[in-house]
Amino acid sequence: MSSDAISGVPLSPSRADAEYADGIDPLGFARRRFCLPDGLIYLDGNSLGAMPAAVPEAMTDALTRQWSTDLITSWNGNGWWELPSKVGNRIGRLIGAADGQVLCGDSTSVQLFQSLVAACRMRPGRGTLITDGSGFPTDQYIAESVARLFDLEVIRVHPSELPKHLDDRTAVVSLSLVDYRTGELFDAEAITGAIHSVGAVMLWDLCHAAGAMPVSLDAIGADFAVGCTYKYLNGGPGAPAYIYLAERHLAGTDLPLTGWHGHRSPFELDQHYRPASSVERARIGTPPLLSMLALDAALDGFDDVSLYEVRTKSLALTDEVISYADRFLAEFGVEVVTPREHDRRGSHVSLRMPHAYEVCQALIARGVVGDFRAPDLLRLGITPLYLSHTEVFEAMQALHDVLATGAYADPAYARRSAVT
Amino acid sequence: MSSDAISGVPLSPSRADAEYADGIDPLGFARRRFCLPDGLIYLDGNSLGAMPAAVPEAMTDALTRQWSTDLITSWNGNGWWELPSKVGNRIGRLIGAADGQVLCGDSTSVQLFQSLVAACRMRPGRGTLITDGSGFPTDQYIAESVARLFDLEVIRVHPSELPKHLDDRTAVVSLSLVDYRTGELFDAEAITGAIHSVGAVMLWDLCHAAGAMPVSLDAIGADFAVGCTYKYLNGGPGAPAYIYLAERHLAGTDLPLTGWHGHRSPFELDQHYRPASSVERARIGTPPLLSMLALDAALDGFDDVSLYEVRTKSLALTDEVISYADRFLAEFGVEVVTPREHDRRGSHVSLRMPHAYEVCQALIARGVVGDFRAPDLLRLGITPLYLSHTEVFEAMQALHDVLATGAYADPAYARRSAVT
Repeated sequence: MSSDAISGVPLSPSRADAEYADGIDPLGFARRRFCLPDGLIYLDGNSLGAMPAAVPEAMTDALTRQWSTDLITSWNGNGWWELPSKVGNRIGRLIGAADGQVLCGDSTSVQLFQSLVAACRMRPGRGTLITDGSGFPTDQYIAESVARLFDLEVIRVHPSELPKHLDDRTAVVSLSLVDYRTGELFDAEAITGAIHSVGAVMLWDLCHAAGAMPVSLDAIGADFAVGCTYKYLNGGPGAPAYIYLAERHLAGTDLPLTGWHGHRSPFELDQHYRPASSVERARIGTPPLLSMLALDAALDGFDDVSLYEVRTKSLALTDEVISYADRFLAEFGVEVVTPREHDRRGSHVSLRMPHAYEVCQALIARGVVGDFRAPDLLRLGITPLYLSHTEVFEAMQALHDVLATGAYADPAYARRSAVT
Repeated sequence: MSSDAISGVPLSPSRADAEYADGIDPLGFARRRFCLPDGLIYLDGNSLGAMPAAVPEAMTDALTRQWSTDLITSWNGNGWWELPSKVGNRIGRLIGAADGQVLCGDSTSVQLFQSLVAACRMRPGRGTLITDGSGFPTDQYIAESVARLFDLEVIRVHPSELPKHLDDRTAVVSLSLVDYRTGELFDAEAITGAIHSVGAVMLWDLCHAAGAMPVSLDAIGADFAVGCTYKYLNGGPGAPAYIYLAERHLAGTDLPLTGWHGHRSPFELDQHYRPASSVERARIGTPPLLSMLALDAALDGFDDVSLYEVRTKSLALTDEVISYADRFLAEFGVEVVTPREHDRRGSHVSLRMPHAYEVCQALIARGVVGDFRAPDLLRLGITPLYLSHTEVFEAMQALHDVLATGAYADPAYARRSAVT
């Protein structure tokens, strides 16, 4: 590499540097664990991760042995009943949560609702719920819905403006650790500390962080967290989400979705809900087991991987994207939106440019899959487990080609509607 | 048959009668559509339906073509975005709902919460929420949770006692159409009418009915309904549930789980939630697509099947169970708990007996899978699509054998804990 990919930004990306970096990549072995079409450079793993090669075999077992043959006995005999906790603990190890605090199930939206209601109930009498006004829509929508149930005011601020809005009226703050559009990474420890200093409760949405970098929920003193598993965790389309309840809150976490799986003694078929004393209280109804078994197999790919190495490679690759854009794409009006500082950057890079939608389509036609975020962003997701330096270099060359030749102006790439 | 299996109860079940009935069974062809282990008689399809043979191929396509190859483009290219509505409409056709009123997703517990909150919001100022005190626990637990949010009193009554509890204080009534323990079927039309006569809102839980009999939600004027898809609909373990919102209520249905998929224009990434005007407003977050694609394939098995024929065969088979129990098992203390009248019977039969747990285990050891419901019920689920008259006869013979020989007393079948 032309410079240290960890502490600085390489100044002049080249194919030779990229190939060299691949040759010494300590995560190079992981690519074989994924199925990706030949010739495709997939920069959308931050939306839907590639399929781990272990999944089809696991699914065949789930169908032909567990469901079809063992049938109802699988609840005990094949561990279906324990799966939400087992998978929860596996996710917990990737987000800095000791066992017994993470439960897998449902969607991020449902888990946001669960945890925000519980968080609001921990601070009766306080009047505001703060969320990021540029955060992912579902986070804002669920915040609105929960605030309405508890007659709270929703305050929308960018995390950088948070300190001036925190006071003793703040009940709960809900933020994403990584901004889904810009890729900005926030300081989880400092923010959590500031929120706790006014006595409020903190919820972290880890959707764009988990699996791409170390996260330390226990260490930073997080109260609640949620996240999806189909992005950097490669769990498959619509793979179930998760919820983190800090151990110190378990006994006092008063959740609204009181499905029978969360009961202290579910098979007593009691008339009244009494929550489990463990994180099992976060269970709701019967989980989507086929999807969860696919996720369980996908997580095998993290068993022998260091998230510090994942983070190191992620930063090197995003450095390379930024460096290439600065050096070769600025003349086409391309602006790097993602922070340049390593400690403020997640694992995707957003480039603002004219005709971003059409450029994205032209790239897809060249076998480079990124995604478009309205109105003017091309978002490139970097998944260190299956992307090589050479692929990232080639993707940037393709982007240069699309811009330099004006290929994006082909009517085939024109936007047909506001829905993408 | 010894008597008319529809209007009466056969008096003397015999193998010859059973084999004759199989020979003329208009649904006999459907058995080939399911994978079941050789020699197993599966009477637990009311808990987890058998695997339709079409599922493995559909799942291979979902994994190797849709996820692994088409990746993120599957949202549009393979119809992932439309799947909750498409599958919802397919389920709708089985429960008497015209298109555009049923949405597939999440679990029954989540859908109960969604619809009960919306129902309560339709009747502000009323003070009670009525549910069945002997209904399935999750229905009672979610009713408790929603009642707490709206400061309502929960009244628990058996549906037969409902009329004396209905008054102008009643906001919402939530009942199962078929009792999960006794198999009692309630009169949906009369009950819905009585509830509407006091101005309350009706929610039907169809878990133990859908797929086993015709249901006529539109015709009876139901307001809301929910149900699971892993019992008689054979959608697979934890297959996603569904919610029915009557068309006349759509615009006024104010749901609490405001995930971004339910937004009017989800890809505008609006800051504020504005629900879709269609049943799409019942979408929450990203659905578990692998589980939903398996369900979609499973529903193919209903495409050319008449639910009236399913119901006819279901009643014939449950008649045969009841008749056998009356004639040959009463001497062992077996009592038929399920109503004998056809119009009061669902598609499972519950037999009260001494040592029900041990008897259930001894039957399983003989390849007959039913299930135990505490404290003293053996529950036999009848799935007309894959059960034959001969199998039901043989299952009852096995039960006779277990009781007559005292085989249930084998210590191997003893109950080790309260959890089954």
